[in-house]
Amino acid sequence: MSITERDQLTARLRVARGDEPADLVLTGGKVVDVFSGRVQEVDVALHDGIVAGLGDYQGKARVDLKGAYLSPGFIEGHLHIESTMLCPAQLSLAVAPHGTSLIVADPHEIANVMGLQGIRAMLKNSQGLPVTFYFNVPSCVPATHLETSGAVLGPEELEQTLSWKRILGLAEVMNFPGAVAGDPEVLDKIIAFKGRPIDGHAPLLSGKGLDAYLLAGPNSDHECTELAEAAEKLAKGMWVMIRQGTAAHNLADLLPLVTPFSERRCLLVSDDRHPDDLAREGHLDAILKMAVALGLDPMLALRLVTLNPARRFMLKRRGAVAPGWVADLVVLEDLKDFQVRQVYQAGRLVAEAGQVLDPAAPPFAGAALGTMKTPPLNEESFLAEIKGAKVRIIELVPGQVLTGQAIEATPGDGIYLRADAERDLARLSVIERHGKNGNIGHGLLRGLGLKEGALASSVAHDSHNLVVAGMDEESMLSAARRVVEMGGGLCVARGAEILAELPLPLAGLMSGQPLDQVVSAVDELTRATAHICSHPEPFMALSFVCLPVIPKLKLTDLGLVDVDSFQLVDLFLD
Amino acid sequence: MSITERDQLTARLRVARGDEPADLVLTGGKVVDVFSGRVQEVDVALHDGIVAGLGDYQGKARVDLKGAYLSPGFIEGHLHIESTMLCPAQLSLAVAPHGTSLIVADPHEIANVMGLQGIRAMLKNSQGLPVTFYFNVPSCVPATHLETSGAVLGPEELEQTLSWKRILGLAEVMNFPGAVAGDPEVLDKIIAFKGRPIDGHAPLLSGKGLDAYLLAGPNSDHECTELAEAAEKLAKGMWVMIRQGTAAHNLADLLPLVTPFSERRCLLVSDDRHPDDLAREGHLDAILKMAVALGLDPMLALRLVTLNPARRFMLKRRGAVAPGWVADLVVLEDLKDFQVRQVYQAGRLVAEAGQVLDPAAPPFAGAALGTMKTPPLNEESFLAEIKGAKVRIIELVPGQVLTGQAIEATPGDGIYLRADAERDLARLSVIERHGKNGNIGHGLLRGLGLKEGALASSVAHDSHNLVVAGMDEESMLSAARRVVEMGGGLCVARGAEILAELPLPLAGLMSGQPLDQVVSAVDELTRATAHICSHPEPFMALSFVCLPVIPKLKLTDLGLVDVDSFQLVDLFLD
Repeated sequence: MSITERDQLTARLRVARGDEPADLVLTGGKVVDVFSGRVQEVDVALHDGIVAGLGDYQGKARVDLKGAYLSPGFIEGHLHIESTMLCPAQLSLAVAPHGTSLIVADPHEIANVMGLQGIRAMLKNSQGLPVTFYFNVPSCVPATHLETSGAVLGPEELEQTLSWKRILGLAEVMNFPGAVAGDPEVLDKIIAFKGRPIDGHAPLLSGKGLDAYLLAGPNSDHECTELAEAAEKLAKGMWVMIRQGTAAHNLADLLPLVTPFSERRCLLVSDDRHPDDLAREGHLDAILKMAVALGLDPMLALRLVTLNPARRFMLKRRGAVAPGWVADLVVLEDLKDFQVRQVYQAGRLVAEAGQVLDPAAPPFAGAALGTMKTPPLNEESFLAEIKGAKVRIIELVPGQVLTGQAIEATPGDGIYLRADAERDLARLSVIERHGKNGNIGHGLLRGLGLKEGALASSVAHDSHNLVVAGMDEESMLSAARRVVEMGGGLCVARGAEILAELPLPLAGLMSGQPLDQVVSAVDELTRATAHICSHPEPFMALSFVCLPVIPKLKLTDLGLVDVDSFQLVDLFLD
Repeated sequence: MSITERDQLTARLRVARGDEPADLVLTGGKVVDVFSGRVQEVDVALHDGIVAGLGDYQGKARVDLKGAYLSPGFIEGHLHIESTMLCPAQLSLAVAPHGTSLIVADPHEIANVMGLQGIRAMLKNSQGLPVTFYFNVPSCVPATHLETSGAVLGPEELEQTLSWKRILGLAEVMNFPGAVAGDPEVLDKIIAFKGRPIDGHAPLLSGKGLDAYLLAGPNSDHECTELAEAAEKLAKGMWVMIRQGTAAHNLADLLPLVTPFSERRCLLVSDDRHPDDLAREGHLDAILKMAVALGLDPMLALRLVTLNPARRFMLKRRGAVAPGWVADLVVLEDLKDFQVRQVYQAGRLVAEAGQVLDPAAPPFAGAALGTMKTPPLNEESFLAEIKGAKVRIIELVPGQVLTGQAIEATPGDGIYLRADAERDLARLSVIERHGKNGNIGHGLLRGLGLKEGALASSVAHDSHNLVVAGMDEESMLSAARRVVEMGGGLCVARGAEILAELPLPLAGLMSGQPLDQVVSAVDELTRATAHICSHPEPFMALSFVCLPVIPKLKLTDLGLVDVDSFQLVDLFLD
């Protein structure tokens, strides 16, 4: 029996009964009642972090909402923080003014670099902020055996996290073939998280495969792209997370799924959201606006980012404006544009008119600063000896993360493989950067439209080795060296000259800087790459050429991977 | 890591994938999809207790449902088993054929007699039956300090149950004034069950009192009688359990609360259901039929007894027909009368055409057989010396459990208080029967219309002492003695003659016999009492005259209780 807890409750009860004044009373608002789907004109008393009551209450302070809407704060059910390039602290400053109160994050990227230490660093950096962060534990680190990652998280490692605070459940089980097939390690991970939320990831899985996947344990999916797919998943018991991120736009296609009957099992999520997108459009507020513009009832829309994610993740007393519930609230001008006027976290005003009141951001764990452990690099590091008259070429497909394969005559000088601007062929190297083995994989890439220079990046899914594309070894070396010097990041070079750069020193994935600075650097990179390259988003393209779970041909530090056969293949053919 | 669990999952996955045949495939049914609100014509594969998949599956056996509906089994969210007078085992045999798959019970009555031992006895008797039983732990034992109960369950006693299997949460916190006022013991009980379901009981509570109650912890209510009351409770975050029991009929009044928007927070429950009602009308099937007859969409209605109670009580993978979910299923002729054709429990046929297939019922714990520990009784036990010219009279109010009070001239022989048929005054005695102190309280009761003889009962809320109403001490003694001899129950006597009886030897509250035998005995009692008494349900009336939380005048073993002032008062006045 906790006496402290009883004392706290006793004090709160005095306020709820009206015997003592509340910390703050919000008057004159239209309170969104997510239980009945109505709006109620009633005052709301906030005290000691919670809603103490609805009705006529005395308060030590009063704020007149002047007819604005008072909604529960928005809850993001599935986000990879690393995709924003911001650390949790900076992300919270960026999204709190957009009404985001709570984020359920999957630290899959940093876990691939730093393992459990990376998850701990994310937990530490995400405390005491205007946004509350919870985490699911990445289930697929590494993503495959065809690459070298910075860490391996087996069932035993994952079990360690069960006692950690703010760990909710198991993050997206991307290895759905493994789950369906009954891979013992996948099952052991799922069993370890029994009774907790287990998120799924099963693009286009249906029929018996889907039944087996559900039976194994995962019961949510954010990968639906087709309405019939989403309808089958919902009918079979999945929480459908409708994704509207930077790359994946599924809202318009999936919106017909959301009816008053089915809506309780639906969420709106971002998955991946890039910094420029965050700055330009916002976060869940932008998705709500779009959903309502597409015809969704605003009260239903609000439930998709309040009560529903709270229920899916078993977050007690969150997601509604009700007595005893956490006073995470957002004041909205209307239920059409979802313009955010003020944001309250646990009863305290934390953001107003687009700005957080206290922009303090704690530093990120120092261990994240030294993750670029590449082998010593020189120009030879980027040279591949020709071993056949023909060569496999990775071909980018515009607007998609999957790639094609071409087999053509080997471009080169008789000894080494060379780029060929005429044939739109850049050289591609992937350098192991976790200090494990110093592997370097070589290949050729078509579709960047690179004319000269090189691009290097430490953001390369899922193992985040150092990927370098370039037309000559001097440019490749200087770009790669600069990324290593920065402790990670993106860089464009021409010869010895660095044209632009974005430092991402936190695990090579995140900046420690505020959103506006990151966006400026991204803009500069975009301008610089436009001079030497015709691809609209070459770094995005590069970030996916190492991902050996997406067809068809990929390059990792171990070499070329034929994804369909799921094995390494030779670069050269006779 | 549980190897056994992984092996089980691996074997189930083989079936889900279609690599091995399922135990049973139900074909040709219309499957109720509670997630999307549709009916789908699809086969359902059952294996190892769960639904293995939906679609074309091979099975070791196949059953053609021939167009019948296949629904998740019904879940009762709030029932006092003791009100049925059946033990859990016999109750399961009675309700399984009506489609009841799971019951969440509040063993409040037996706990008042036997404490934790009583709860353990209920758990033990409710294993391995065609209905799955879960229990919430009674929060108010004893109900008040104005009576002698068989046990006291303080916070420490309740905490012991937290590790017991099939204990879900805290049962209805009836002491709502205590919760609102911050009574330390009430708060300690609630805090002990933090994170678990905590059921409420707050008739007509509203405004700040309701806010405080919710803030304290309880977040469901089954006591709503008015629509506005239910709407306020729902809007403030309560699960509203719409009650349609034997005594309380709230469905018609509260049904407008249930909209597609609000419905997720609503349940249909019985609370108290008497044996004759069970036999004549059924259980949740009867409530469903009535709800739909009153205009509720059948798909919404079904959710109120499947998915919603499962969510309210955090019962994992129950309440829907979906891959990996428990295969508790009911085959229905239609969605109008809800005529039950077959019932499957964990994939096994357990009832068909109104009969359970295996009517075996385990015996109840022997400790429950010796609970009638009254003091030695003789005719003098029922005599009260006159101590004033006027006397307080408990007046029954037709159709209600509350009572009135009259103060009139004392009927008697100058020495002892006597009954007076002319003035419709029966003598009333309440005898402590838990072996604690041998108290006997005396009073007068108006409204039974008793002409001669006596009625005695060991069912007397909430302490279940022995209540006896009669016109003379000989009849009172023989009725009371017979109840003690039976180990508890109901009895009608005239002089030395026993006119009819219903033995309830299990804690003085439940029979060990099947429903039909109990109903026969009840019918016989009804016939016998009709000869000597004009009240239509005299035993029901008697069961509430000892309950000192319902206004206005009640009698306990300690004496007369004025409920409004919540204190003992003298029987006689000058």
